[in-house]
Amino acid sequence: MIGIFDSGVGGLTVVKEVKKKLPGYDLIYFGDTARVPYGNKSAELIKQYALEDAQFLLSRGAKLIIVACNTASAVALDYLRANISVPVFGVIQPALQAALEMTQNNRVGVIGTRATVNSGAFQKCLLALQGPDNSIDNRDVQKPAFMRKRSVKNHSLIKKTKLFFQAAPLLVPLIEENYLDRPETARILKHYLQPLKAEQIDTLILGCTHYPIIQSLIEKKLKQVKVINSAERVSQELKDFLGHNQSIDRSLAKRREARFFVSDLTPHLTDIAKQFLGQRINLEVVEL
Amino acid sequence: MIGIFDSGVGGLTVVKEVKKKLPGYDLIYFGDTARVPYGNKSAELIKQYALEDAQFLLSRGAKLIIVACNTASAVALDYLRANISVPVFGVIQPALQAALEMTQNNRVGVIGTRATVNSGAFQKCLLALQGPDNSIDNRDVQKPAFMRKRSVKNHSLIKKTKLFFQAAPLLVPLIEENYLDRPETARILKHYLQPLKAEQIDTLILGCTHYPIIQSLIEKKLKQVKVINSAERVSQELKDFLGHNQSIDRSLAKRREARFFVSDLTPHLTDIAKQFLGQRINLEVVEL
Repeated sequence: MIGIFDSGVGGLTVVKEVKKKLPGYDLIYFGDTARVPYGNKSAELIKQYALEDAQFLLSRGAKLIIVACNTASAVALDYLRANISVPVFGVIQPALQAALEMTQNNRVGVIGTRATVNSGAFQKCLLALQGPDNSIDNRDVQKPAFMRKRSVKNHSLIKKTKLFFQAAPLLVPLIEENYLDRPETARILKHYLQPLKAEQIDTLILGCTHYPIIQSLIEKKLKQVKVINSAERVSQELKDFLGHNQSIDRSLAKRREARFFVSDLTPHLTDIAKQFLGQRINLEVVEL
Repeated sequence: MIGIFDSGVGGLTVVKEVKKKLPGYDLIYFGDTARVPYGNKSAELIKQYALEDAQFLLSRGAKLIIVACNTASAVALDYLRANISVPVFGVIQPALQAALEMTQNNRVGVIGTRATVNSGAFQKCLLALQGPDNSIDNRDVQKPAFMRKRSVKNHSLIKKTKLFFQAAPLLVPLIEENYLDRPETARILKHYLQPLKAEQIDTLILGCTHYPIIQSLIEKKLKQVKVINSAERVSQELKDFLGHNQSIDRSLAKRREARFFVSDLTPHLTDIAKQFLGQRINLEVVEL
């Protein structure tokens, strides 16, 4: 089945999109709520946690893995691909490819956790796309063929693209406290978006699974700016991949079953999960 | 030596007070930054983490332990006392005793994390103090003699005391992001304090090690209300305890040495630690 993990329940925004794009496919989700959040932790620790998360999904029968967590995708994707033997999809590259397709002025903003922004992962991914053969890192054997070949946009335009970053660490707690319509959130959001606005970005990547919840607020503050939700893009990429990889597609169960695991459970968490997925689900607790 | 632990580096506010009250005593500190925060996690998980934290301190030579973390004190203190064999001090009881001494109208407010507020620990502690023999839980063999005997206040007044609770989960991230002087923080703080004000409390317990950083902001919003910092009180309690327990006091090294351990380290954490302790320290990383 398809395995999806995140540091918490924010990755359910990815589950929602995968269910839309690939209805019927069995899913297994893991949220590492015993150790959430990852965004303020060190790269070494995030790698260790991400590998443990992935290994749990493999032990439960996952045949491919989506790293829904932007922090883990930014910091631990290469590490995961080097250490596990099924295809691993991160959310950084799909979001960046979408941005490169959409931007007109080649000025793209990224908001995310401190760890995501400091990781340099978006910049590294952009540099690979800007490279002479217009491909992402050729040494990367895990990467499906269509990704290596696909030309995102006219190469000379990609060469010109610049990224502008903003760490936005208060957005996750504000969203988890359901502070969506409050003036404090509007003000903090403005504080985070102002520097990106000043750089005249025309495209913004939501570099955290929590942010789609406040996408409309962000769009209101950044009129004319296209906002990219990576959950949607990674789901499309997975669908394309399965179209090109029939043997893997055939190995995936399609009984419309989904199971959701977390490493810790509180009543508040159940409420947040509902907010992300749009429906109440049964969260099962496991110890890693 | 004296062992002190917290979920993160907030417990350094306790270190600061212990150093003031007991200068010269060796200290060992552990901040569980690999799994911080505890405040939104389940009681079972908090107990497990707290025991692991305490066991680390014991393995490094601690002869008594202060649970600086309000969440762990509220949820895991009995569990720790049942499972380890040195005296364990929490921050709930000292703060509550201070409040009972200070309140005139017997209406006391408590702010803390969701786990602390939901634990019922303050209420349970108050009920014990309100009991017929005016003592905290007699079955508690770990509790030093002076605590069992000490009469905090006229018993009939304690009987009348009411507690009012407010979970304030956004304060920790705001403090960690150094959003101290910003209007958003003032507004969120007002939102949290308003219901307590409406209950006409005259005393407020800061039920989280982070809050002393914004104590002056809180005092500005709650004029006439006495604000209790549990770090100060637990340090005084420890000093009293050592005065009454010479053999334990003699077992503590007094070479003015302090070591600070964390389970994860980032540059941002080093900055926050400095803010809490008022000086830059060397944080050593250990894996639990």
